[in-house]
Amino acid sequence: MELDNKYCYSIELDVRDYEIDSEGIVNNANYLHYLEHARHRFCDHAGFSFKAMQDAGLIPVLNRVEVDYKTPLRSGDRMVIAIWVEMKGVRFVFHQDIFNAATGEMVISAVVSCVCLKDGKLSRGELLAEKFKPYLK
Amino acid sequence: MELDNKYCYSIELDVRDYEIDSEGIVNNANYLHYLEHARHRFCDHAGFSFKAMQDAGLIPVLNRVEVDYKTPLRSGDRMVIAIWVEMKGVRFVFHQDIFNAATGEMVISAVVSCVCLKDGKLSRGELLAEKFKPYLK
Amino acid sequence: MELDNKYCYSIELDVRDYEIDSEGIVNNANYLHYLEHARHRFCDHAGFSFKAMQDAGLIPVLNRVEVDYKTPLRSGDRMVIAIWVEMKGVRFVFHQDIFNAATGEMVISAVVSCVCLKDGKLSRGELLAEKFKPYLK
Amino acid sequence: MELDNKYCYSIELDVRDYEIDSEGIVNNANYLHYLEHARHRFCDHAGFSFKAMQDAGLIPVLNRVEVDYKTPLRSGDRMVIAIWVEMKGVRFVFHQDIFNAATGEMVISAVVSCVCLKDGKLSRGELLAEKFKPYLK
Repeated sequence: MELDNKYCYSIELDVRDYEIDSEGIVNNANYLHYLEHARHRFCDHAGFSFKAMQDAGLIPVLNRVEVDYKTPLRSGDRMVIAIWVEMKGVRFVFHQDIFNAATGEMVISAVVSCVCLKDGKLSRGELLAEKFKPYLK
Repeated sequence: MELDNKYCYSIELDVRDYEIDSEGIVNNANYLHYLEHARHRFCDHAGFSFKAMQDAGLIPVLNRVEVDYKTPLRSGDRMVIAIWVEMKGVRFVFHQDIFNAATGEMVISAVVSCVCLKDGKLSRGELLAEKFKPYLK
Repeated sequence: MELDNKYCYSIELDVRDYEIDSEGIVNNANYLHYLEHARHRFCDHAGFSFKAMQDAGLIPVLNRVEVDYKTPLRSGDRMVIAIWVEMKGVRFVFHQDIFNAATGEMVISAVVSCVCLKDGKLSRGELLAEKFKPYLK
Repeated sequence: MELDNKYCYSIELDVRDYEIDSEGIVNNANYLHYLEHARHRFCDHAGFSFKAMQDAGLIPVLNRVEVDYKTPLRSGDRMVIAIWVEMKGVRFVFHQDIFNAATGEMVISAVVSCVCLKDGKLSRGELLAEKFKPYLK
């Protein structure tokens, strides 16, 4: 599927059957796992892996998540997770949408807001901002 | 700890160590698991278990989740999950706050909005509303 | 239910609905979560929490797990996890059986074998052995 | 990496950071998730998806799992999951080894034994055996 050019990064993942719950759809919490994995891959892509952050004493911390659930994913489905990012003060705001790779339908639309701790204290996230610069809106 | 009387139901849970991630705190997605478990226990308490709903052809479906992350839970912590519920049109809106049982600190504050499908179609959720009546704000 | 007196420790847990998979039964991997949680609670009980171990530079590491699946747990079930422990050389061998709390039926029978790393190297686990002494067969 | 030709199928997966626990390694239970996902992909590959089985009234049920843990996977690692299968009476026995894709080191070695229920009763699994025939040792 073709993505809107507002997105700066995307990955594709397959649904794994253990992520399906008794309703026959992906359990609501697993989408947060997918979103986290996509953010971490985005950080790799931007040249600053999650592990490198931890080694540098930086810890990105979620402070707010909003998820709108549109259409569920099921066994056998493949998804596209698309991201665009902006800074709002000291917060990094990740706009993350998941689409059904086969149909293009939107599965969820999420806004994930993070701050960056440096040695346990709130930082302005300059280092992260620099790495993300080419991608920020 | 003493809960504000706006809440109509609460449960206590222990953090399990497999819920902790490499940052030494409960992974963000696990809070959605805690919230779901508390909602299902609330339904049991209200006399309408999740399984009874499924047997009656009713499927509660999440349509939106908002979570504000305040202070993380860690290994060994015990939490209180408190709930109050309101109806907005056809949506059941669960206000769910998690507190550290030892300190009383707020861990997360969440708003979870559900609709009820009856045989696959959006229903007005009368049956659920009736069961929840004594608890609704 | 009454437990055989070979067991030295037990806990009770409720099945959480997100642990159920599309077959309507607890997913096979979740039993390993239950078993780990029970072992960690046993360590707490024996006066040596998992966190205290980590702080002391000790890391218990699984080297083998065997699970026989007997009868599945389902939504609404409550389980009893019973443990007895023995040492075989440097290995701590946990015999862990899970029972359906309502019926007494055996759900799984597991043998979990661990070794203890001290500062990254295999240790003889003296400290752990001392704490576990009152419980060892 | 090159696999021994005893294996009839393999897939590659990336470790996701939420699968890492507070020890900085993949949590022991997640390997069962990886193994299940690989078995389901193998079934797809053999032309008989897990969903198709369910639709045909067949339910594969685990009856025993043995896992030897060799070297842990960590953040950023990629794994190869290799499978070979044999029938022993009515049991399908999956031999599943996980390797670190970068180093070729064995991560875990597992034997997973399943039976097949047909409409709730133990079956001889003829249909599954037929699909798996080209792959069985």
